[in-house]
Amino acid sequence: MSSQKLKLGFIGLGIMGGPMAHHLLKAGHQLFTHTRSKTPDYLQQDGAVLCASAMEVAQQADIVFLMLPDTPDVELVLFGENGVAQGLSKGKAVVDMSSISPIATKDFAQRIAAMGCDYVDAPVSGGEVGAKNAALTIMVGGTPSGFERIQPLFELMGKNITHVGGHGDGQTAKVANQIIVALNIEAVAEALLFAARAGADPAKVRQALMGGFASSRILEVHGERMIKRTFDPGFRIELHQKDLNLALSAARSLGLSLPNTASAQQLFSSCVAHGGKGWDHSAMVKALEGMANFEMG
Amino acid sequence: MSSQKLKLGFIGLGIMGGPMAHHLLKAGHQLFTHTRSKTPDYLQQDGAVLCASAMEVAQQADIVFLMLPDTPDVELVLFGENGVAQGLSKGKAVVDMSSISPIATKDFAQRIAAMGCDYVDAPVSGGEVGAKNAALTIMVGGTPSGFERIQPLFELMGKNITHVGGHGDGQTAKVANQIIVALNIEAVAEALLFAARAGADPAKVRQALMGGFASSRILEVHGERMIKRTFDPGFRIELHQKDLNLALSAARSLGLSLPNTASAQQLFSSCVAHGGKGWDHSAMVKALEGMANFEMG
Repeated sequence: MSSQKLKLGFIGLGIMGGPMAHHLLKAGHQLFTHTRSKTPDYLQQDGAVLCASAMEVAQQADIVFLMLPDTPDVELVLFGENGVAQGLSKGKAVVDMSSISPIATKDFAQRIAAMGCDYVDAPVSGGEVGAKNAALTIMVGGTPSGFERIQPLFELMGKNITHVGGHGDGQTAKVANQIIVALNIEAVAEALLFAARAGADPAKVRQALMGGFASSRILEVHGERMIKRTFDPGFRIELHQKDLNLALSAARSLGLSLPNTASAQQLFSSCVAHGGKGWDHSAMVKALEGMANFEMG
Repeated sequence: MSSQKLKLGFIGLGIMGGPMAHHLLKAGHQLFTHTRSKTPDYLQQDGAVLCASAMEVAQQADIVFLMLPDTPDVELVLFGENGVAQGLSKGKAVVDMSSISPIATKDFAQRIAAMGCDYVDAPVSGGEVGAKNAALTIMVGGTPSGFERIQPLFELMGKNITHVGGHGDGQTAKVANQIIVALNIEAVAEALLFAARAGADPAKVRQALMGGFASSRILEVHGERMIKRTFDPGFRIELHQKDLNLALSAARSLGLSLPNTASAQQLFSSCVAHGGKGWDHSAMVKALEGMANFEMG
């Protein structure tokens, strides 16, 4: 299939979507794009066809990819005026690579499937670097045949590709990922701050802990950022807040208690209150450090 | 030094101390022991000399190891009637391998150092298996000369040996370790429970997350225990509660906020309230699962 020239659509060409779409184009596929802002020059130079609406993308392409900021954006692009749904016809496919609500995703998938089309949710992790290097982790929800249909295209954009389960399960895995990342950051922050306040060298403590049961990718990478005080993103706190909001609002619907996710979200909010929405998420440690100094008003 | 036959003491010969002392004995050193219960047969058969008190151990041995349950036990054995301090003389050394308060440790170290002796705190992780296989992780606090003096003996008991810093810093590192382990367990519990309640297969979600930023030793080992429902210890909840109590009481003294450590401690307490003090610490997930079903009274 990857040797065959396909008609692909891509809607949402930001810092993630742009390079991801570029990989599809460079593999020899035809690319139809639409975006709220401007389609990047490198896509236009390599022959991407600009469309006036999401509907037009869905009319031209057989498989339409989305990479949008949040749930309402995806809903609008799919089902709004001149949206994807108005341009789809039977046998086409929608691949949503945005990170959005797993619950809304199940609804979107049902509505698209009712039109005789495949719907695959496939959120990613790995950030801008992963997008540029075609090294994204991709967590996929959808039918087995839907997954198989898109798999060769995923392989152009990512490395660690897992078919997690049915519609929405890709989004669920992504939310689970973001819960663990936030809470492991919080764990490392509490531990290294404790070590420092108790008079030990947090860098030595991190080193002592690296081989044992406390070891994690977050202790390795974000622990070092906390010690070296390098809080340039990385991954911005405001984006992680969006992801934890997905976790907490879905948990509320599901009747599920996530006490430490709620606590981590409050610590992020504390950073934002101090001007930190653009800080790297490892700066959560600042909220723990600074609590004694916070002032009302 | 390890080819030289030393006079060593070992106080506290439980499931950890017993095998640790045995490694010292098998390396050819003389071993003087004292314990509240019974010195294990394998130590007696291999020539350990049983002493009537901690004081007598300190009179006979040049380097006295302790492996005791908690801070008050160490204080009593060191400074109580017929305790170690009464038997020490200038130039001897005390090596506390128990996991106890870093703050109390600084005080104990100062009092022992004032007698002209070395004091080294060297708590371990790796559990009974690590103790038996001489594969413990050892986190060491003390002077550089104190550390160097004991290092060849640590190498008989462990593999990953780090000189973290001055007196108490070994205990501080151990507390930091236990904070991260508890909070990473909590993180994995929230994430996998979220995934399951949202309708995904938690085993598939764990697999999708293993290569990325959510990866940790806890996701690997304890995540699997949660999925397979194997909650036999492992590491008992009541022991982890002791460690988190050290973290929380030291944090109170230091004026430091550890919100998620406090929350994890409450979840452990919830397990204990349901008969789970002997469950493996990964069973913390049960507290999150069961909250909707708890009844008052």
